[in-house]
Amino acid sequence: MNVPTLYPALFEPIVRGALAEDLGRAGDATSDAVVPIGVRTRAAIAARREGRVAGLDVAAAAFRLLDPAISVHVEQGDGSDVAAGATLAVIEGPARPVLSAERTALNFLGRLCGIATATRTAVRAVEGLPARIACTRKTTPGLRALEKYAVRAGGGTNHRFGLDDGVLIKDNHIVAAGGIEAAVRRARDAVGHMMKIEVEVDTIDQLRQLLPLGADAVLLDNMSLDELREAVGLVDGRMATEASGGLTPDTVRAVAETGVDIISLGWLTHSVTVLDVGLDFETG
Amino acid sequence: MNVPTLYPALFEPIVRGALAEDLGRAGDATSDAVVPIGVRTRAAIAARREGRVAGLDVAAAAFRLLDPAISVHVEQGDGSDVAAGATLAVIEGPARPVLSAERTALNFLGRLCGIATATRTAVRAVEGLPARIACTRKTTPGLRALEKYAVRAGGGTNHRFGLDDGVLIKDNHIVAAGGIEAAVRRARDAVGHMMKIEVEVDTIDQLRQLLPLGADAVLLDNMSLDELREAVGLVDGRMATEASGGLTPDTVRAVAETGVDIISLGWLTHSVTVLDVGLDFETG
Amino acid sequence: MNVPTLYPALFEPIVRGALAEDLGRAGDATSDAVVPIGVRTRAAIAARREGRVAGLDVAAAAFRLLDPAISVHVEQGDGSDVAAGATLAVIEGPARPVLSAERTALNFLGRLCGIATATRTAVRAVEGLPARIACTRKTTPGLRALEKYAVRAGGGTNHRFGLDDGVLIKDNHIVAAGGIEAAVRRARDAVGHMMKIEVEVDTIDQLRQLLPLGADAVLLDNMSLDELREAVGLVDGRMATEASGGLTPDTVRAVAETGVDIISLGWLTHSVTVLDVGLDFETG
Amino acid sequence: MNVPTLYPALFEPIVRGALAEDLGRAGDATSDAVVPIGVRTRAAIAARREGRVAGLDVAAAAFRLLDPAISVHVEQGDGSDVAAGATLAVIEGPARPVLSAERTALNFLGRLCGIATATRTAVRAVEGLPARIACTRKTTPGLRALEKYAVRAGGGTNHRFGLDDGVLIKDNHIVAAGGIEAAVRRARDAVGHMMKIEVEVDTIDQLRQLLPLGADAVLLDNMSLDELREAVGLVDGRMATEASGGLTPDTVRAVAETGVDIISLGWLTHSVTVLDVGLDFETG
Amino acid sequence: MNVPTLYPALFEPIVRGALAEDLGRAGDATSDAVVPIGVRTRAAIAARREGRVAGLDVAAAAFRLLDPAISVHVEQGDGSDVAAGATLAVIEGPARPVLSAERTALNFLGRLCGIATATRTAVRAVEGLPARIACTRKTTPGLRALEKYAVRAGGGTNHRFGLDDGVLIKDNHIVAAGGIEAAVRRARDAVGHMMKIEVEVDTIDQLRQLLPLGADAVLLDNMSLDELREAVGLVDGRMATEASGGLTPDTVRAVAETGVDIISLGWLTHSVTVLDVGLDFETG
Amino acid sequence: MNVPTLYPALFEPIVRGALAEDLGRAGDATSDAVVPIGVRTRAAIAARREGRVAGLDVAAAAFRLLDPAISVHVEQGDGSDVAAGATLAVIEGPARPVLSAERTALNFLGRLCGIATATRTAVRAVEGLPARIACTRKTTPGLRALEKYAVRAGGGTNHRFGLDDGVLIKDNHIVAAGGIEAAVRRARDAVGHMMKIEVEVDTIDQLRQLLPLGADAVLLDNMSLDELREAVGLVDGRMATEASGGLTPDTVRAVAETGVDIISLGWLTHSVTVLDVGLDFETG
Repeated sequence: MNVPTLYPALFEPIVRGALAEDLGRAGDATSDAVVPIGVRTRAAIAARREGRVAGLDVAAAAFRLLDPAISVHVEQGDGSDVAAGATLAVIEGPARPVLSAERTALNFLGRLCGIATATRTAVRAVEGLPARIACTRKTTPGLRALEKYAVRAGGGTNHRFGLDDGVLIKDNHIVAAGGIEAAVRRARDAVGHMMKIEVEVDTIDQLRQLLPLGADAVLLDNMSLDELREAVGLVDGRMATEASGGLTPDTVRAVAETGVDIISLGWLTHSVTVLDVGLDFETG
Repeated sequence: MNVPTLYPALFEPIVRGALAEDLGRAGDATSDAVVPIGVRTRAAIAARREGRVAGLDVAAAAFRLLDPAISVHVEQGDGSDVAAGATLAVIEGPARPVLSAERTALNFLGRLCGIATATRTAVRAVEGLPARIACTRKTTPGLRALEKYAVRAGGGTNHRFGLDDGVLIKDNHIVAAGGIEAAVRRARDAVGHMMKIEVEVDTIDQLRQLLPLGADAVLLDNMSLDELREAVGLVDGRMATEASGGLTPDTVRAVAETGVDIISLGWLTHSVTVLDVGLDFETG
Repeated sequence: MNVPTLYPALFEPIVRGALAEDLGRAGDATSDAVVPIGVRTRAAIAARREGRVAGLDVAAAAFRLLDPAISVHVEQGDGSDVAAGATLAVIEGPARPVLSAERTALNFLGRLCGIATATRTAVRAVEGLPARIACTRKTTPGLRALEKYAVRAGGGTNHRFGLDDGVLIKDNHIVAAGGIEAAVRRARDAVGHMMKIEVEVDTIDQLRQLLPLGADAVLLDNMSLDELREAVGLVDGRMATEASGGLTPDTVRAVAETGVDIISLGWLTHSVTVLDVGLDFETG
Repeated sequence: MNVPTLYPALFEPIVRGALAEDLGRAGDATSDAVVPIGVRTRAAIAARREGRVAGLDVAAAAFRLLDPAISVHVEQGDGSDVAAGATLAVIEGPARPVLSAERTALNFLGRLCGIATATRTAVRAVEGLPARIACTRKTTPGLRALEKYAVRAGGGTNHRFGLDDGVLIKDNHIVAAGGIEAAVRRARDAVGHMMKIEVEVDTIDQLRQLLPLGADAVLLDNMSLDELREAVGLVDGRMATEASGGLTPDTVRAVAETGVDIISLGWLTHSVTVLDVGLDFETG
Repeated sequence: MNVPTLYPALFEPIVRGALAEDLGRAGDATSDAVVPIGVRTRAAIAARREGRVAGLDVAAAAFRLLDPAISVHVEQGDGSDVAAGATLAVIEGPARPVLSAERTALNFLGRLCGIATATRTAVRAVEGLPARIACTRKTTPGLRALEKYAVRAGGGTNHRFGLDDGVLIKDNHIVAAGGIEAAVRRARDAVGHMMKIEVEVDTIDQLRQLLPLGADAVLLDNMSLDELREAVGLVDGRMATEASGGLTPDTVRAVAETGVDIISLGWLTHSVTVLDVGLDFETG
Repeated sequence: MNVPTLYPALFEPIVRGALAEDLGRAGDATSDAVVPIGVRTRAAIAARREGRVAGLDVAAAAFRLLDPAISVHVEQGDGSDVAAGATLAVIEGPARPVLSAERTALNFLGRLCGIATATRTAVRAVEGLPARIACTRKTTPGLRALEKYAVRAGGGTNHRFGLDDGVLIKDNHIVAAGGIEAAVRRARDAVGHMMKIEVEVDTIDQLRQLLPLGADAVLLDNMSLDELREAVGLVDGRMATEASGGLTPDTVRAVAETGVDIISLGWLTHSVTVLDVGLDFETG
């Protein structure tokens, strides 16, 4: 699968911040006290449940940035589907920093694998239908790039990364602009030729107002399945149709059957369950 | 309730980072295009479900840091229990920045209220029993201080904030130290008089080994209810007892009935569902 | 004119950095030595040449961030056309920090007014024709958001802000992808529904290859006026047409007459002449 | 020529900032979509016009910091004079990051070569005369150290780097101090033994006032050639003489013939034209 | 001795900041001007007085971070006792960066060795007695982690690292809480099971009030030797006893003889004399 | 006295860093637990010993940056001489943040007053003689600007702030350059007209070599009083003379009597004793 490039320049500052958050001022009091200098260890990053891998390079960076003497050998990289018990990577190096970086590495990995796995579940649920699964801007503060990447690793597609890379006109914008026509016209005048315009509608009536104005996409917000079907018919391919509003992987199949192009789920990034991952130390 | 002080010096950098993450390089393309300069707005931050409030000052900071001309009037502050539909705060100011800060503010608030609400549920579940509900270090990278604060706002207590403010000797530390006795002895020699020592045990046998060595607390990891009961009896008040391992608010009551002093849940911070919060704009 | 919002959250860190760059470790040795504490001053920010204003809030921030006791009264804000000698703003406050912030404020203002003025010149040159004047990513490192804002203040439009908010397939991408068809297909598969795709072509032949594949826009790179005319005819409104390559405000009129939709100029941000602005102190 | 050391510790944070500015949150959408993983490339950084090289290490850092797997082989380093078409360096590595870093690298290199080339032109223009060519504090915010370095690479000399490494008493300082005598006396009392004092004069009369007071240098601001000649004669070697005010490489020769020691040009850093540099990919 | 791990992730940002502070905007003017490129050097970091080593990795980082081409070979690492004249490490590499990093490296090393040496003196002074030597929060702003590490390298123990890793109730807290009983009770209710509580008392009377309330430790502030002896007797092992208040290594022996468990000295970090260390260049 | 301006832009980041260092992740556990919300306090910053004040604005910033609701009223500002027991400032506001900022504020104030006081002692010791008291680059990493400011507040003068604002040729530079003549000539060729050149000599012979070469100043390193006297005679006013090497306020008088212009003491910043300052809370 085509997982996008995740440059270390992008995620290393986040990992450094997370290490600093865990090490605090004084470092790892337990390992310093208990583990003799010179003890080395070998450990496997293992999935405790089956799922889709995402964020392994980020987790690896937690070890490497804490101590370059730690080596990380990836066995199942981002985008892989793994069984419960599978080894994702093998870590080897001085025991103290391996133990000190463990929690930071797993906090990243569990969350990103959790997102990828849930995305994959949703993607599979709509298999055979044209709909693509997308995320929203309801992401964890500070982790948007990583979470959007995990959605891609899960087979999903990305909506806007922020307020500046697309126009999405919502109900409050329409009120402030003095109506949908004024809002769409003002948007078209203002934006450059590389920016798309999407408009949110809550009712079929609003959609009918929008159609003659034109837009790149329409966000069909919190509509019933019947409304969605009607909306898709009305739009008839003139713009992309996106369904949104309180959806989870369990509910996407029915929505996809209405014929919409995109189904977006805030749930994927704001309420997902982590994938249980752990670090198993070799003994003996 | 005694919610700890959350100094702006601590959370403002995180909020600024989240605003920058959403504004990107070019700011809010939609509001700039669609909302005329000079339009003002008034909006209510409302809870869509009942829950416990946490993070309202953090959400307010998102508005205030983006534009000091926005005022935020808190109606139900951190630590309050609110009904579905309740207004937590009223926002007033120029429409553009209110719209631009909305998602950032809600992303913080939804997550922190979600944690506080789940913690409160767990705390209520153990009411009448001595056990206190605690969180772990399985927090979102970059948000540990805020998430631990939300646990406190939910009535829970905090475990270690990081690797440096307490000693927690786990199985791998014991292996690396060459046994539980060596590990505990090394720890006691190394740490200062203000640091506590907790030791993780997986079996009653390990607990028996620990008891004569002494420690401030014992972490009873993944034990059955029977084992927990036996462990509490064996410890007999000589150290604090903590139960941990895959628990959720649904399962804490039974655990608390074993008599343990602390029940810690990684779930509270790594897999909690956000509280649904929204911004309702006044119209007319 | 509709100048976009420039949030202080976005530019204040840049201004603080510039002040620190000028103050160094020891601050303003001259003012500290020569100007007695308590001396106050009043000064006008004046344009020495006619032009379009941009960046006045940024310049004002240099004074305000150095000493909140300095007041800045704006007379001709961003987007205004001013005559040589015009007063843009009046500064009042303690003399030491006014003198210390002067150069930093003017370095920002001169550059941003220079860009707005040159953009306005180009925009005026194409008046009556459909073409819009756009900038590129050939901006000063660290100042992209400010420079793109100045282009908007000059009446121009913005191209991509970076590598992540639009797809622009250039010759080297086509080579790496193994041909234009593969490149466009791969792009369409990968990007979300809110991202546009533009393809660069150097010849009419390449354009003919592109047309059946479809794209949101085509970048006609370094073409002669005759080629541009032919290209516009071939495209016939099916995608946006952009002309680029070594253009300046002096040469845009002829290009616009070919009928292209966008004319982009790297020159606007990489080689523009600053607008001469100064700080005139009242004496007596 | 003796180009000063440009420590990576100094410029890497600037380069990282510029990469982040271009990559945004989501990285290089085009290369990720279009260029298959595993494709490698070899490309030459080439000068499109003749000029003086400066900033090659900075440009190389853009590639290296984005991906350490990219190698950069310098052929014509900083301080070299190169012909149009010359190869400055050869880049080799994975195609994606080479393409992603290209614009950032060239934005630095074009600007710094532009400054070095213009400085060299000015230096050559005064050949055979005692005058040295200097820059000012009219630099691009955030890039002062790099731009002053480029002036050195062009054969010029540096004036103050900021407000703290030299005293330059201007007209407004004199007004605030209550006269030139008070100003110079206050300065001499205040500064340490390692700091020089320069005084700006606009007229021959002011210069006559200054001469008995003494200073390390005098800045002859916006004087005519006749005035400059008279000033040089009056000073007669007792302090360094510096001419300044609206000069460009085209006008420095005549100024140098008046006998001044230093000619400073804000133009070198605020309005210079970039040197056209490009990245030529090998095909094959 | 068991010196704790000092992760580069913790101290490298501090060292980078110190290098930047010394290099300023323009770098090392002297070495750039005077030392030809290509000259290499070999130099020894030597102690001019006998003492205990601490901070050698920090000093080494100053060289390495400025130029990775510099090698540092440690001969006497942290925790070693060295004679006057001893070589701690040998530095080898290009002469310019070695000279440029010298002062930064020595500023760290001198201070940290000074603290370690003074701590060791105090530790030796109490040899044979149960008292341990501790530091306080009276550390140099920005260097707390390094200074606390140096105390450990000197054989001392660490008190709280900050306000968040232990409760220390002082006189003003007691006033604000409305009495010692309220203060201790409130503290016990609020803190988690991993946090210790210490209470400061100034008189034997206060101690008598504290004893029935219980605490982990008592800080006996500014007491006479007689009072300390009485206090130790009263406490009788029920909590740790700490003596503090204006002590230096010269006065700790008498205090230790009173039987207290911990003796804490702000002096160790706020007024210590640096250990004289230098860099000796090989000649010839 | 003429204390230089200390802009908040310069010191606030340092104060914020120090607050963060003390607050850690969790803030002030003691005040949160023990001090009820709503309790207000009034406290005096008092000197426990007589001395010279420096850093009061920095200390005030610690309170203000933690909570803007705290007011600080300065009674004896920087540069004042105060008696033991004197009140420097009065603090008023909510008790929690006053207590939380106390240690950070005092850590800055004690150190900076200590430096100012010691400098003043040295300055008084040389009263009536031409010598000025200067500091060196042997400052605390991260605090150079503040410490150099404190020297000025104590009546001293500043040497170089870093490697970039003056040339100081030491013995190792001379070796690397191949002799004193080459070194001085290379320096003169390289530096701009605003930079001074000082040369270190250890012997009268070296001084004799230097004299015909010329320089702005000579550093007479570790010379005996007799040598210093001879050196001053030989120099005879042709350059500034600076004595340095292991001096303290106790030894400067004799050195000043040799007639040198500057006496520099690393001791002032690396080994000074803090001035004992405290915060006295009003009771009742």
